[in-house]
Amino acid sequence: MAKSDVKLLGGWPSPFVMRARIALNIKSVPYEFLEEKFGSKSELLLKSNPVYKKIPVLIHDDKPVCESLIIVEYVDDVWSSGPSILPSDPYDRAIARFWATYIDDKFFPSVRGIAAAQGEEAKKAQIEQVNEGIALLEDAFVKTSKGKPFFGGDQVGYLDIAFGCYLGWLRVTEKFNGVKLIDESITPNLAKWAVAFCADGAVKDVMPETDKLSEFAKVVFSKMAGQAPPK
Amino acid sequence: MAKSDVKLLGGWPSPFVMRARIALNIKSVPYEFLEEKFGSKSELLLKSNPVYKKIPVLIHDDKPVCESLIIVEYVDDVWSSGPSILPSDPYDRAIARFWATYIDDKFFPSVRGIAAAQGEEAKKAQIEQVNEGIALLEDAFVKTSKGKPFFGGDQVGYLDIAFGCYLGWLRVTEKFNGVKLIDESITPNLAKWAVAFCADGAVKDVMPETDKLSEFAKVVFSKMAGQAPPK
Repeated sequence: MAKSDVKLLGGWPSPFVMRARIALNIKSVPYEFLEEKFGSKSELLLKSNPVYKKIPVLIHDDKPVCESLIIVEYVDDVWSSGPSILPSDPYDRAIARFWATYIDDKFFPSVRGIAAAQGEEAKKAQIEQVNEGIALLEDAFVKTSKGKPFFGGDQVGYLDIAFGCYLGWLRVTEKFNGVKLIDESITPNLAKWAVAFCADGAVKDVMPETDKLSEFAKVVFSKMAGQAPPK
Repeated sequence: MAKSDVKLLGGWPSPFVMRARIALNIKSVPYEFLEEKFGSKSELLLKSNPVYKKIPVLIHDDKPVCESLIIVEYVDDVWSSGPSILPSDPYDRAIARFWATYIDDKFFPSVRGIAAAQGEEAKKAQIEQVNEGIALLEDAFVKTSKGKPFFGGDQVGYLDIAFGCYLGWLRVTEKFNGVKLIDESITPNLAKWAVAFCADGAVKDVMPETDKLSEFAKVVFSKMAGQAPPK
């Protein structure tokens, strides 16, 4: 493939930006990382994503691609000679897409709900809901990984990226609330997976340290006066 | 491809079920349509979609696939020798997925908001929001159809299915509120597209008549006491 111009508009704390970065890393695609400042939007961002005005935006040969999971599929399609990100079997692909959608539509909103919950009872109920989601994902892991280290088998794939990008924020949530959400004693497979995911060559340099992310979260939470972290 | 067993759990008024049916029609896949009754859920549905307990579910050789857009992609992947549903170019595919996501996440919720709006002012504001969405989609049509009759070019494709499945409910909304949402004088391209879409061989037998859908909507709305139609 001819050398192409790849830029990514993003920010280090965003789980959605991390998805795009991991996909590009898996394919060994060099890219320019254009960091947006929290709280402001560059002209390039406004021009490239006029509908949502949100990061990440991948700009490939001057053409913008928006929405993190769409970017991941695009990277997999364009740099098809690299390791595959989506499963090759249509049914496995449908299952990976199903759980990725579940994670964005149901699971992570419930994690954000912990920070937004008012009072101990509401917080406890919210944590219970998150735990139910994690139990579903533990079960999905057992079924889709088929004894291998990742949802995608031997390598980090689509569903690993979709879920794994939230691990930093899950750890921050654990730290702020004195709970364990992914725990060896309850979800041993996900606990092992999380370690393998964070140590992966495509992931480790873009996964934020929990302490750094916690400091960022404190600033965000105080600005938003008790609201959940920004999507 | 060997003859396979295809069942679809659905209901005639559901735009999401219509997506799966159109995809199967495009590929000329025979299937058994198992109609769920409004307000109750069959054992097969609960077993096949335990996470959401929602239609549509495609059951292909005893394996369930859930979520309408995921079903459409699955049908395109499995019956790959039929006419293509997703665009073949990766960038066009990303753009089609972007607008399909926009339609589900932003556009149709704003249409549902018209029924839920309390008072004339709120309703007017909501209609205004829908019109802004339609203007964006008119623009997207011009860019992606490139002078051809469908978003997908010469044939009904992914984005046609994603948007077109809502036409019945848009017409019901127009009828109940005395407004025109897709109008020749304002969005001439979408108006022409809507006619072509509804007349297409893969669509016409599964697109509900506006009068029949209106009667159904009245029952739903009265049951839900002023809530938006069910997703």
